[in-house]
Amino acid sequence: MTIIPNLKRRHFLIGTAGVVTSAATGLPALAEGDATALPDYVSWKNADTVIVHTKETLETQRAAQGAELLTPSNSLYVRNNLPAPSDEIVADRDAWEIEFGGVANPTSMTLGQLKTMGIETVVCVLQCSGNGRAFFDHEASGTQWGVGAAGNVAWTGVPVRTVIEAMGGAGDDLPWLTGTGGEVIPEGIPAETIQVERSVPAEVMDRAILAWEMNGEPIPLAHGGPLRLIVPGYYGVNNVKYVKKLAFTAEESSAKIQQSGYRIRPVGEKGAPSQPSMFEMNVKSWITGPLTDAATGKVQIHGVALGGVSAVSKIEVSIDGGETWTEASFIGPDLGEYAWRPFVLGVDLPAGDHVLASRATNAAGDTQPETVEPNERAYGHNGWRAHAVTVTVA
Amino acid sequence: MTIIPNLKRRHFLIGTAGVVTSAATGLPALAEGDATALPDYVSWKNADTVIVHTKETLETQRAAQGAELLTPSNSLYVRNNLPAPSDEIVADRDAWEIEFGGVANPTSMTLGQLKTMGIETVVCVLQCSGNGRAFFDHEASGTQWGVGAAGNVAWTGVPVRTVIEAMGGAGDDLPWLTGTGGEVIPEGIPAETIQVERSVPAEVMDRAILAWEMNGEPIPLAHGGPLRLIVPGYYGVNNVKYVKKLAFTAEESSAKIQQSGYRIRPVGEKGAPSQPSMFEMNVKSWITGPLTDAATGKVQIHGVALGGVSAVSKIEVSIDGGETWTEASFIGPDLGEYAWRPFVLGVDLPAGDHVLASRATNAAGDTQPETVEPNERAYGHNGWRAHAVTVTVA
Repeated sequence: MTIIPNLKRRHFLIGTAGVVTSAATGLPALAEGDATALPDYVSWKNADTVIVHTKETLETQRAAQGAELLTPSNSLYVRNNLPAPSDEIVADRDAWEIEFGGVANPTSMTLGQLKTMGIETVVCVLQCSGNGRAFFDHEASGTQWGVGAAGNVAWTGVPVRTVIEAMGGAGDDLPWLTGTGGEVIPEGIPAETIQVERSVPAEVMDRAILAWEMNGEPIPLAHGGPLRLIVPGYYGVNNVKYVKKLAFTAEESSAKIQQSGYRIRPVGEKGAPSQPSMFEMNVKSWITGPLTDAATGKVQIHGVALGGVSAVSKIEVSIDGGETWTEASFIGPDLGEYAWRPFVLGVDLPAGDHVLASRATNAAGDTQPETVEPNERAYGHNGWRAHAVTVTVA
Repeated sequence: MTIIPNLKRRHFLIGTAGVVTSAATGLPALAEGDATALPDYVSWKNADTVIVHTKETLETQRAAQGAELLTPSNSLYVRNNLPAPSDEIVADRDAWEIEFGGVANPTSMTLGQLKTMGIETVVCVLQCSGNGRAFFDHEASGTQWGVGAAGNVAWTGVPVRTVIEAMGGAGDDLPWLTGTGGEVIPEGIPAETIQVERSVPAEVMDRAILAWEMNGEPIPLAHGGPLRLIVPGYYGVNNVKYVKKLAFTAEESSAKIQQSGYRIRPVGEKGAPSQPSMFEMNVKSWITGPLTDAATGKVQIHGVALGGVSAVSKIEVSIDGGETWTEASFIGPDLGEYAWRPFVLGVDLPAGDHVLASRATNAAGDTQPETVEPNERAYGHNGWRAHAVTVTVA
């Protein structure tokens, strides 16, 4: 077993079921002995392909990401800001209600009604803002994700635009689209301190959907079923689970998760509304195999690449730690600009250690940097060097 | 519950777990009481989305096909000509051996070796030749499939061309590519009477792959893992499971399944090599919802459409039993010419009964016919009228 260079050793070991870290989220960490146990609400996950960090945080193993077109639901990462609601809400899915606001004719609708309005499917990367946190050198709080807080998922639902048009359109001067999650707020806790409510620029309405299916099946409770707001190209937190309200608003949500949470700022600074919010994902890629060792002869170096909000257009691979780069090939059909694309490059590697790296470029011309500046919460790492792996060929 | 028009009542009921029919395959039928029980080797299937016909034949429920981009593995149909081999063969997948013949330098390779040669993913429809058998009026033997012996699947493996080129290319004057399945032939039974060995025109090598993953996971035993030959655009039987030999040959396989099985001929005639073999799929579509009833107001008529060996290019829907047609919209990304595309059309349906039909056209200009001529084994039904559904709006 080889440790990834530049990776905090205490945090992440390839191929293990993960090291238990205390949750910095106020949620209980798992007991030591439960490191590999799947929590009940995700007992249907494939224990062989996930790393259980805490009850609310499961990561897909890097090797299990393979060269996948779509991430199987039972391998997809889980990150819940609050415990999932009771599974009673998925017992009668079509009865789920969502309230709309900031439109000409505000109303509530059931999921059953939404299903009569339109059907669209979008494939997009779902990725936690903190994916790659373990690659930062500073000690940032939060789950120490490697690469596995990301997956490529097909979402089916009704376009938000279709629903809003049916309600007469958005009101004037309401630049934010605010989604409110249906998690239960315990009595005695002020809602805005923990409520999952996120505002995104209203123009994303053009590509957002209200989804009831994930990978061809009703969305599991752990992933936000019965109804989830999907904002393609945006970090996971903006894809509000159990969405119970969607409104065009004059201001961003007053919830802590919007005002000070998920903000990029220098290490040591507190979060504030003036700082950039974790909205658009950046261009990124990583190798998913081989990760530690290979036999001499031909080796298929493979991985996944995403463009963020602009389609990934080029992927290069280096077998010498970034000294030289060779363009690799994408695998399979293009699933759209917000999807990831698996890639592969066949190479002959002589015996010895090799540092393998990948570097993606998107249609807007953005290329992964070699390194990234640290930020307090260790969000958005897309530096290619930290994502490199050292492979021993024998 | 409404019976589909033109459908043999005794054979197929919408929304039920299926009527137990005696298997005409020589394999034991399930006892009456086991109609909904999943056989052990497919205990991981979603019992809510499949119809269990026999131990070797499971169908996806029509409603469960929805408007899916890919068919979830746990809903995908199963049709085994012989019982699956022991699950020992998937305990050490990389050790699986396949022998190659009819090439310049014939050799055997393990799956582990194949994985070093290349990686490709192709999405294609997997469909049993007998899908739609229940829509024929004559009494054909075999499982009485409705529409659910079909799914859209992502297969990952190495292109056959890549492997053959590494062996110096195919020999001259060998027009067939013959794959041999790894099912165990019981002692005392002449192999060619039951051996699953299929020959296809050698030129399909250009698009065939030797697959080890299905929908991003190692291929389950029931679906041909550890290694399956995938021939995009060809009926299911040609996609040999547990493939243990692949050879370019001068003649078609002498196995019964090739010589007389899977041949199109008039009702009452025996199978013979002179008859057309079930190779290329034809253009086809069907509605997957609504199937029986709907509330007044807007209704999203949705289904799936495939082009066969030429990409599906147009899909029309009729709400008046085929008197008039309206072009519907495809849903989500195009997964390639051998994949199906979900489609949708939003309509207002007044109270009353409505016969809903769909009709696909492919890039080659082929359109689904209204009706099809019967054939002895009831293969390849793609008539739009029999696939129509009557929906009661109230």
